[in-house]
Amino acid sequence: MNAETKFSDEPTRVANIVRQFFSNQTNSVFGLDDGPHARLLAGADAKDDCAVFDVDAPVTLVFGSDYVRGTKFALYELGLLSNFDVGYYVVAANISDIAAMGAIPLGVVTVVRYPNDLNDEEFKEVIGGIHQAATDFGTLNVGGDIGQAERIIVSGAAIGMCERGKVLMRKGAQPGNFLCVTGPCGLLGAAVAYFSGKEKNGWSLPEAAETVLLNSWKRPQARVAEGRILAEKSLATACQDTSDGLKATIKQLAEASNVGFDIDQGSVPIDENVRLVSELIGVDPLALSMSASADFQLAFSIHPNDVEACREEFIVRGLDFHIIGRVTEKAQITRLVHHDGSISELPGVAWKHQKTDISTLVSDAGAAARQDRGA
Amino acid sequence: MNAETKFSDEPTRVANIVRQFFSNQTNSVFGLDDGPHARLLAGADAKDDCAVFDVDAPVTLVFGSDYVRGTKFALYELGLLSNFDVGYYVVAANISDIAAMGAIPLGVVTVVRYPNDLNDEEFKEVIGGIHQAATDFGTLNVGGDIGQAERIIVSGAAIGMCERGKVLMRKGAQPGNFLCVTGPCGLLGAAVAYFSGKEKNGWSLPEAAETVLLNSWKRPQARVAEGRILAEKSLATACQDTSDGLKATIKQLAEASNVGFDIDQGSVPIDENVRLVSELIGVDPLALSMSASADFQLAFSIHPNDVEACREEFIVRGLDFHIIGRVTEKAQITRLVHHDGSISELPGVAWKHQKTDISTLVSDAGAAARQDRGA
Repeated sequence: MNAETKFSDEPTRVANIVRQFFSNQTNSVFGLDDGPHARLLAGADAKDDCAVFDVDAPVTLVFGSDYVRGTKFALYELGLLSNFDVGYYVVAANISDIAAMGAIPLGVVTVVRYPNDLNDEEFKEVIGGIHQAATDFGTLNVGGDIGQAERIIVSGAAIGMCERGKVLMRKGAQPGNFLCVTGPCGLLGAAVAYFSGKEKNGWSLPEAAETVLLNSWKRPQARVAEGRILAEKSLATACQDTSDGLKATIKQLAEASNVGFDIDQGSVPIDENVRLVSELIGVDPLALSMSASADFQLAFSIHPNDVEACREEFIVRGLDFHIIGRVTEKAQITRLVHHDGSISELPGVAWKHQKTDISTLVSDAGAAARQDRGA
Repeated sequence: MNAETKFSDEPTRVANIVRQFFSNQTNSVFGLDDGPHARLLAGADAKDDCAVFDVDAPVTLVFGSDYVRGTKFALYELGLLSNFDVGYYVVAANISDIAAMGAIPLGVVTVVRYPNDLNDEEFKEVIGGIHQAATDFGTLNVGGDIGQAERIIVSGAAIGMCERGKVLMRKGAQPGNFLCVTGPCGLLGAAVAYFSGKEKNGWSLPEAAETVLLNSWKRPQARVAEGRILAEKSLATACQDTSDGLKATIKQLAEASNVGFDIDQGSVPIDENVRLVSELIGVDPLALSMSASADFQLAFSIHPNDVEACREEFIVRGLDFHIIGRVTEKAQITRLVHHDGSISELPGVAWKHQKTDISTLVSDAGAAARQDRGA
């Protein structure tokens, strides 16, 4: 920090820095196509005890919370992520949970606590990232809590709504359904593995690859549009975001729906950059793709008869998904079906809270990534 | 910590400790009298991406967030508050914001991050406090985020609902209205002042007084029933909780409603225990009662014609309120009217983010309390 670092008075800081991002929220309208609408009667600009929404019809509401470990982000500590990025991520993480339910986000509330030595510009970056993500995902940061702490702490919660009876849950997958994913997984885990080991191991990927890996953390995309198609058209029978990694997601869907999954070895999409990292660190690219990684793809089950209609809806909007397996009657048994028809356990490391479970295995890269993100 | 301290495996810990508190949530119904109902389709027990509520009619939704500084609670650090108390407080703080809007709480989500050296019993205490508070305030902890951090971090968010058009905001107070408060304020600030200075100054209050002061932090009461009367019967014209202290609350109501307030010196209720502390620390009891203090009383404005009806509604439910002043046309000017008719500034220290603003003044007790609570 240099001599020009500026710290405003606390009330002024909050008022002036925050106000510029959160003005004119009141009277914003969030609507479902041909469905219920919610009008924001009091946003962050109203500075009331809570944000207020008027909802004009019966709805289904969804409500969740996600925390980010602030400065404990591995890539933040390496200087590769900015304060803006941390703010962006916490909103994306919260909206991803809303998207996974097939809902539109009505609003997010964020807790931003910061140390005394965080100057105005840095604080503004955090708020700026929060604001940009809210804008990108079509919602608003309608309130929260700002104050001091020993270090940066960023947390959030979000509410969303969808038509009654159309919410997507983890239960509902039926034997015979296909299992699909909206895109390749494992990028965030691969990014942590690569950048954490880069200097020590003398690794060097092309600049384009490094950019993609880093951008997976800087601008993660919550899949609101995909979730809405799946819910509004009643296409998915179950849905979950992949923020615990694809393997963990499949296991959780299997538990919630009390079904099994046979995953087709050749059908799981693998990001080219995950492949490059897997070669560097010497693990199976499929395993790295399925391991703990805080991506926000959606995994969903769908009746085979609905796949074509779903494909059309996605294509019209420039979106994509991949069929990666089948739902089976084998309760909670998830398997990988190899090219030769042989069967094995799903590869990769599913995220668990306890680090030691993971660190003994090959790919602790994703585990590290997932740990950084929070629970 | 002794040799018998037990740490469970992380996934087991989360599953077994949390599960016992959050089973059987699904299908709980939250209803407004003769109004809309919300059914919890998926609670924490469903372990989905979000909690899910079906709402059966148009409603007004409220949504807020409050953070607690965990181990930085002054009285927690003094060993006077338990992990259970911290869990209880964060829920009370979040529900108080819902109550201040005249809504019923539908659910809270909580973030609980804990250090490696927190054993199972201590972790269970935090969750137990959260669960007890949710139960006491007629709601459920429907989800959140649990994981590790360098120290205890407890944060929350809550949603609530009320009849459309009946939500209580900070704006709406009209000149000629009375200003009321549901009970004496300043107890939490007084508690921090007393216990923080007790040893140093050799202070000693009777055990009964110490119990009341400590209990203000251990079991703070969100005023849901009071808020509901004021909203459902359209009695209050504006409302806010006093979690910034009474002086700050009055100033914020004045700003939001663009009115002034003349507070009657003799009408502000003063808790006997606040008076005892004020004598010990040598400040005006009225000033201590109005200073920064994280209590959860409600301050509300009401048309004089509605006071009698309001009194009846409160009495029937064993509740109380005090008329402490009048709304004036003097935009944003808040004044104290003395017994002799003379006028002065409101006494006490309104909470602000910047500690230095406060610490120079007489009563930094409440400021300390408010800072501990978060923004």
